[in-house]
Amino acid sequence: MKEQVFLYDTTLRDGTQGEGVSLSVDDKLKIVKKLDELGVHYIEGGWPGSNPKDMEFFEQVQKIRLLNSKITAFGSTRRIGIKAEEDENLQKLIESGVKAVAIFGKTWDFQVKEALKTSLDENLQMIVDSVSFLKNNGLDVTFDAEHFFDGYKQNKEYALKAIVSAEMAGADCIALCDTNGGTLPHEIAEIVEEVCSHVTIQVGIHCHNDGEVAVANSLAAVQSGARQVQGTMNGYGERCGNANLISVIANLQMKMNYQCIDEVNLAKLTSISKYVHEIANQAAPSNQPFVGRSAFAHKGGMHVSAVLKHPQTYEHVKPELIGNKRRVLISELSGQSNLMFKAKEWNCTIDKKDPNSKQLLETIKEKEHEGYQYEAAEASFELLVKKSFSTWKDYFSLDYYKIFIEKSGQDLFTTEAVIKLCVQNEMVLTAAEGNGPVNALDHALRKGLEQFYPIIKKMYLSDYKVRVLDETEATASKVRVLIESSDGEEKWSTIGVSGNIIKASWLALVDSVQYYLMKHENEIEVVYPKKEDHCLGVSNH
Amino acid sequence: MKEQVFLYDTTLRDGTQGEGVSLSVDDKLKIVKKLDELGVHYIEGGWPGSNPKDMEFFEQVQKIRLLNSKITAFGSTRRIGIKAEEDENLQKLIESGVKAVAIFGKTWDFQVKEALKTSLDENLQMIVDSVSFLKNNGLDVTFDAEHFFDGYKQNKEYALKAIVSAEMAGADCIALCDTNGGTLPHEIAEIVEEVCSHVTIQVGIHCHNDGEVAVANSLAAVQSGARQVQGTMNGYGERCGNANLISVIANLQMKMNYQCIDEVNLAKLTSISKYVHEIANQAAPSNQPFVGRSAFAHKGGMHVSAVLKHPQTYEHVKPELIGNKRRVLISELSGQSNLMFKAKEWNCTIDKKDPNSKQLLETIKEKEHEGYQYEAAEASFELLVKKSFSTWKDYFSLDYYKIFIEKSGQDLFTTEAVIKLCVQNEMVLTAAEGNGPVNALDHALRKGLEQFYPIIKKMYLSDYKVRVLDETEATASKVRVLIESSDGEEKWSTIGVSGNIIKASWLALVDSVQYYLMKHENEIEVVYPKKEDHCLGVSNH
Repeated sequence: MKEQVFLYDTTLRDGTQGEGVSLSVDDKLKIVKKLDELGVHYIEGGWPGSNPKDMEFFEQVQKIRLLNSKITAFGSTRRIGIKAEEDENLQKLIESGVKAVAIFGKTWDFQVKEALKTSLDENLQMIVDSVSFLKNNGLDVTFDAEHFFDGYKQNKEYALKAIVSAEMAGADCIALCDTNGGTLPHEIAEIVEEVCSHVTIQVGIHCHNDGEVAVANSLAAVQSGARQVQGTMNGYGERCGNANLISVIANLQMKMNYQCIDEVNLAKLTSISKYVHEIANQAAPSNQPFVGRSAFAHKGGMHVSAVLKHPQTYEHVKPELIGNKRRVLISELSGQSNLMFKAKEWNCTIDKKDPNSKQLLETIKEKEHEGYQYEAAEASFELLVKKSFSTWKDYFSLDYYKIFIEKSGQDLFTTEAVIKLCVQNEMVLTAAEGNGPVNALDHALRKGLEQFYPIIKKMYLSDYKVRVLDETEATASKVRVLIESSDGEEKWSTIGVSGNIIKASWLALVDSVQYYLMKHENEIEVVYPKKEDHCLGVSNH
Repeated sequence: MKEQVFLYDTTLRDGTQGEGVSLSVDDKLKIVKKLDELGVHYIEGGWPGSNPKDMEFFEQVQKIRLLNSKITAFGSTRRIGIKAEEDENLQKLIESGVKAVAIFGKTWDFQVKEALKTSLDENLQMIVDSVSFLKNNGLDVTFDAEHFFDGYKQNKEYALKAIVSAEMAGADCIALCDTNGGTLPHEIAEIVEEVCSHVTIQVGIHCHNDGEVAVANSLAAVQSGARQVQGTMNGYGERCGNANLISVIANLQMKMNYQCIDEVNLAKLTSISKYVHEIANQAAPSNQPFVGRSAFAHKGGMHVSAVLKHPQTYEHVKPELIGNKRRVLISELSGQSNLMFKAKEWNCTIDKKDPNSKQLLETIKEKEHEGYQYEAAEASFELLVKKSFSTWKDYFSLDYYKIFIEKSGQDLFTTEAVIKLCVQNEMVLTAAEGNGPVNALDHALRKGLEQFYPIIKKMYLSDYKVRVLDETEATASKVRVLIESSDGEEKWSTIGVSGNIIKASWLALVDSVQYYLMKHENEIEVVYPKKEDHCLGVSNH
């Protein structure tokens, strides 16, 4: 029987403290679903008292039925000199409607005197009052011992007193925080061991990566007795980031014989990592341990032949166990088996002898080389597969589009698109305005299609993301556009890649509409092909 | 007296095994000079026997006078069944003209049998012969014990026998290699300690980051007795990279009381990290520990007020000691104190009673409400502050721009921008093409400005990011555009927010150019205002 380690994800709170990381309420809700699916035990959603966005999140998240995760609200101990029930921040935690909370409090005497400017005793009382108040309200309470390791080094007795106070007040877990991220693994090991001999409740660990050892620190803490690990997806977080929960899970479960999540869910780590990178609009580091694109990529000639014979010589774990795959960078031999692996990932059985399969594999290979990445664009991938395995045809095709943008004076701003389409063998010319070139294109496209496919009125674009692929050339380089669409019930994502942002957007736009029409083919009337084709040579590409 | 740890840099050899990392001979020579300046003890330049580029490097590098570093050539033990002096790869090591070499050999019995396909005894003899031969040629010899940790776990006796053979043959150092990167710190600690009790010469450590613990592994090895650390600048290397020597140095010397390099040279770490990123044409991760742009960046309002009072609460080391600096990010999470700090950085004292300050704070509040986020756009923020506190004027203003985009047929795609600007009281009309509307605008804008401000030719856009702010309306909703620009030395970021992506991009573009001109005002000729203003009513917004 493996020992359980509980996962506490703070991507939505501490993660968004990272420079350039910003998540909308909708982004947060999407990530919640994925974390729940993965089997993370606690999902820290935000600090309800601190801003309206977090309040809205806690309202919205109650509508999602979660299978594995407890949504957790973050806050602090009560303010000095008031009762816990009078403290607005604690009130907001209760109002947020969650079942679990984490509150941080001081355990470093220096911080109590210099930052809080109160007595050491009042600080202990603040911890006791706050924890008791939350426990009396029926909540699962984690006490985040801020600056614990610095505090411990300077005044061990007081640091221990502070966490024991939290324990006595009924806290369910004491999470030891290395707030400035500077503690090293051997110190963590020693101090956590000592703490575990003083408290009987669960001990947690919260590390930052300032010394590039956050994952090692988390592992050391678990070996010394900690059973809750706090961290973020992909290690997002303030400064150098938090402990990367993905690497922590993989190491604990695959190498150290602890139980974190269901064994089968390990294979979701790679896709969830990419998913979160996409949602947060962050470039995925190709050398990210376990889940990065290069994590099992072999370049050296000698390595390659060795790895094919004996994978363990250059692969510390089996890539497929975490949903990743081996890549061989210099040889064409690798291609086929990689693609088979990829297709299997998307539940598509590919038989090498079938010419359609062969063609599909070729196409995927080309597309990936161009910069397509289907992880976050399943609708586009499904279209690709359907096109290879059926006689499926486009519901429309493009003759041309033209866009005019003009800004003059303070107020005059025009964005117009003119599109000529071929729909069911008829040529259609439409024009529309928009708040930008893609918006105008979208409007004109749908205006032209509505008369043929009225159902299209129900769908709309719900998100639009652009990523530059080769950062050295910026606006002159390739861009990847991700479009998310919705009809109010379902959502689907499509992708376009091109040297031109408008072209890339158009490709994603077309996929989105085609996908929707394909999914609702029984609700639309399709009258093609007619005897005469008026649209010869017209294409969407 | 601090104990010395010797640094062995393999950026030029193992580092270039990383996906996307490629260095010319000239690049390598440049990096050599920097590493020597830093005080790295060994610089592994390549494998002379493996390719002509490495041979050329070893020829060229002899012309450089180095103060601190020994150039080291990499190779392997002799082939099976021949004499060492007959082995071409060993011959090439000697011909390369270096004073130090590292050769790798097998220490894992499984590898000897399965990969080498020879007897365990012959492998030991290969080690002995090769090391002796190189020592007899007067070289400093490091024996790289490949797959040592895997070998040790499966056949401890043989693994130890292999390295003791190298010692007896005269090797100067035994470097224990965690070749597949999967070993964890507690295992490293235990095994290195055991090894140190069996050999009397120097022990080295060579780690990879597959478990995200390469730095921790290196530190653990040193604590257990290793005195040579192998790694690469910024952690480049195959798969997930090698141990990042920069973080290793900083931790060992600043926190663990070992001596690696001259104390004053620690302050070169940040600039050398950036330099190597530039030479290798890699994007510098902003969250890179110690030396990254975000490594001492503070976002949370509470953190900021605390860090100003007591830096150690959120900074594990003093940023200036490693040549980095503290940054305060401006965001919705931040409070008044962030703004005050920021302004002080540019010599603007913000006094709440001053009407200019008041106006600025109001403006920032409004802008943030509109969707501006200055944390990733410091240049735009600096412009905003400068505009509030000085008589600073725009270097140009816009009369109008027009953009034409046309796609027809498979191949015809046009994107053109026409811009009319007022520069130094003269009206300028330009047109340019681009790979998208923003790229075309950028080209036309700079074409129009170059004649007035030739310095502008040096700057270029290095990244472009788009984010939809209100996701329910997608392309019809507000977008935030972030533009990163560079002149090859410095980078700066600007922001634009608008309901129209083109408008938002234009705002960010204008800020980028205005900022660059402002920073180089002493290098440009500004002739405004002339007696007559031809550009009345013209603005950039």
